[in-house]
Amino acid sequence: MIDYLIREAQNVQWEIRVGDYSLDLAQDKCKGKDKCVAFEFDINNETQRKEEIENADIIVSMLPAKFHPVVAELCVEFGKHMVTASYVSDDMKALDQKAKEKGVLLLNECGLDPGIDHMSAMKVIDQIRDEGGELTAFESFTGGLLSPDTDPENPWEYKFTWNPRNVVLAGQGIVKFIQEGTYKFIPYHKLFRRTEQVHIPGYGYFEGYANRDSLKYLDVYNLRGIKTIYRGTFRRPGFCRTWDVFVQLGATDDTYQMEAVDQMTHRTFINSFLSYNPHDSVELKLAHYLNLELEGPEMHRLKWAGIFDNTPVGLSEGTPAQILEHILNKKWSLKPEDKDMIVMWHKFEFTDKQNKPQEVHSTLVATGEDAIDTAMSKTVGLPVGIATKLILNKQIDLTGVHIPIKKEIYGPILEELDTLGFEMSEKLVS
Amino acid sequence: MIDYLIREAQNVQWEIRVGDYSLDLAQDKCKGKDKCVAFEFDINNETQRKEEIENADIIVSMLPAKFHPVVAELCVEFGKHMVTASYVSDDMKALDQKAKEKGVLLLNECGLDPGIDHMSAMKVIDQIRDEGGELTAFESFTGGLLSPDTDPENPWEYKFTWNPRNVVLAGQGIVKFIQEGTYKFIPYHKLFRRTEQVHIPGYGYFEGYANRDSLKYLDVYNLRGIKTIYRGTFRRPGFCRTWDVFVQLGATDDTYQMEAVDQMTHRTFINSFLSYNPHDSVELKLAHYLNLELEGPEMHRLKWAGIFDNTPVGLSEGTPAQILEHILNKKWSLKPEDKDMIVMWHKFEFTDKQNKPQEVHSTLVATGEDAIDTAMSKTVGLPVGIATKLILNKQIDLTGVHIPIKKEIYGPILEELDTLGFEMSEKLVS
Repeated sequence: MIDYLIREAQNVQWEIRVGDYSLDLAQDKCKGKDKCVAFEFDINNETQRKEEIENADIIVSMLPAKFHPVVAELCVEFGKHMVTASYVSDDMKALDQKAKEKGVLLLNECGLDPGIDHMSAMKVIDQIRDEGGELTAFESFTGGLLSPDTDPENPWEYKFTWNPRNVVLAGQGIVKFIQEGTYKFIPYHKLFRRTEQVHIPGYGYFEGYANRDSLKYLDVYNLRGIKTIYRGTFRRPGFCRTWDVFVQLGATDDTYQMEAVDQMTHRTFINSFLSYNPHDSVELKLAHYLNLELEGPEMHRLKWAGIFDNTPVGLSEGTPAQILEHILNKKWSLKPEDKDMIVMWHKFEFTDKQNKPQEVHSTLVATGEDAIDTAMSKTVGLPVGIATKLILNKQIDLTGVHIPIKKEIYGPILEELDTLGFEMSEKLVS
Repeated sequence: MIDYLIREAQNVQWEIRVGDYSLDLAQDKCKGKDKCVAFEFDINNETQRKEEIENADIIVSMLPAKFHPVVAELCVEFGKHMVTASYVSDDMKALDQKAKEKGVLLLNECGLDPGIDHMSAMKVIDQIRDEGGELTAFESFTGGLLSPDTDPENPWEYKFTWNPRNVVLAGQGIVKFIQEGTYKFIPYHKLFRRTEQVHIPGYGYFEGYANRDSLKYLDVYNLRGIKTIYRGTFRRPGFCRTWDVFVQLGATDDTYQMEAVDQMTHRTFINSFLSYNPHDSVELKLAHYLNLELEGPEMHRLKWAGIFDNTPVGLSEGTPAQILEHILNKKWSLKPEDKDMIVMWHKFEFTDKQNKPQEVHSTLVATGEDAIDTAMSKTVGLPVGIATKLILNKQIDLTGVHIPIKKEIYGPILEELDTLGFEMSEKLVS
């Protein structure tokens, strides 16, 4: 995102200011580049945040999401536009009227997921409606995975390419969706067993588990009355069945501190979730408890992840989720040369204006260059960068709190993403 | 508890004042009895609560637990003793020093569980210590069940004899205990599958699931260093495996509101937790999903409970837990003539002063008379009543915040319970 804006700045009268709590990090982003100034920035410094926002033309906030409303309020006060890749919070939503009065655009959910998912879905949905069709089912999956040529011996076909803590906690709470006109609810402890399999020609099989609340998209995409709505996350086949082992054990629980963590090994961590039985190994107890084959693929993935090792965890305290994250990070951190992969896939079922059932699939696959220029960072950052440019150039000319579901926003962003090599391919399959 | 105190009041200079938010209810308790006055009482009325507490010699608070600290503060202010059957909250604990300064006793956890469990356990623990023994394992279970002659066709052998909401939510959160020197943690979704079976001569088999935090009893009973500590709840065999069906479905979740509850039947409630499949019945889908025999005992209990019926739920909104409670109440409410049963069982393993391993079991079984005079109400209320009498008579002469783990409290209470027919029988089994 920063590189994109710096590149775009070369031909126009822009200056990019990159602020970070770590000056080193900010300088690193700007090193050797024209029209880019790095500075140390502390969001909790009221004087500084006012000054920086007042002096800018537009603000891109990549801060932790809880700070966005603080920035947004000042943006409204000083009449500056703002772009984020985060979900619209209630505090953000509350600024809508004021932003409109000040002629300010607060554009959120403009990354990958949320972001490109909204844009690419609304593009097809609008098209179906424009052609007189009626949407009956919408399913959508996104996954941050590994390029197939990266780490081929990793049986999970997965590493952390996104906030590891959020990956460990993913799916907690209740899952809601609609299937054939019926509301469906899946509790967390069943989520990773109720997966869907999807084949994407050229890329193979994926398994998807449901995201938390698909129902909120009924209003966001204006889909009330639709028979099926389901949003999910992609992993490679076998991942979910194995991840479910951690869920079943209680190893992803983030609600309590464990005991004697300073003396804990990977192996005793796992054993603390198993019954006492002095005769059986931890492996045997686990396999028996969760009905796994002792030499099957799930046990192979778990062994590869090192969870049975007598290695000290290396923390002095922690919740199960924090300890599990710490253990997995030892194997699941990207190496410098690793390439990640983003896969997004939508399925639209609709009846066309002749009342004939039709089905369209829309697919985006993007591959990273290395552990820094990941597909994740590009697909999250580029839409933000493009939106920023379009707002500055007044090609997007809205006020208030928005997400990219309007054609005037998603149209030009998708178009430019396309020219940058991030193309959603749409295919009528029936 | 009220009947006991009224009875005791007849021979001495006491007057019992029974206050309730419902005057009818209070009057009902006092009807036709001497030395007993009913009045309408609203804890949120500051003037009234001050007046009532100031004019009393001792306060028994059977209010919802959150109100106890409000009462306790005034008790300390006016120098009045107080008795409750509830767990000591942090707010209550904070009053310890002030209570001591004022010469006031705030005695809590003086019912059944917590209450008689503390007393009967500490009696044996103190005895083992007095005789030079060392406790190595402590397990303790309590259950509010049905008398075997009540409702013999009820395959759950269970009805609500305690706050139904708490029964539906029981076990949520994390379970912690120590087994043979190892900390063990069980997540909620595994709790009802990791039960222990206990046989009590004369009463048959029980199954126990673990209570939330057994570790806190390490300090309460001064058991640091013990190899095994486990506290649990008794049900009749088969109950837990069937209750687990609700847990696995997510039907005990209390964190979200369901959709379209006003149109919901028992059957559609259950179906909302199952996959869409137009070819199979709800029964078949459930049995298949949770690996139950279609004609097995779990399905029999579920059918008996009416959960597959096309009966409207009869609520306009609710969480899954609220809806499940409402459905179960239709079958699990005590009929006027039903008798409940309380079972409490402790197991103590210790080495005696000759270093020989020993084992003692301690058992209390009490049966109710009908749906009003339940074993539950007696075993919760009588210890409170007895403690109140003993404090008034200065036979318990302590100040500060206490629970009945000191011999000077539990000794005379257990003694009187014994004379009233509630006797813990202790037996050396090895």
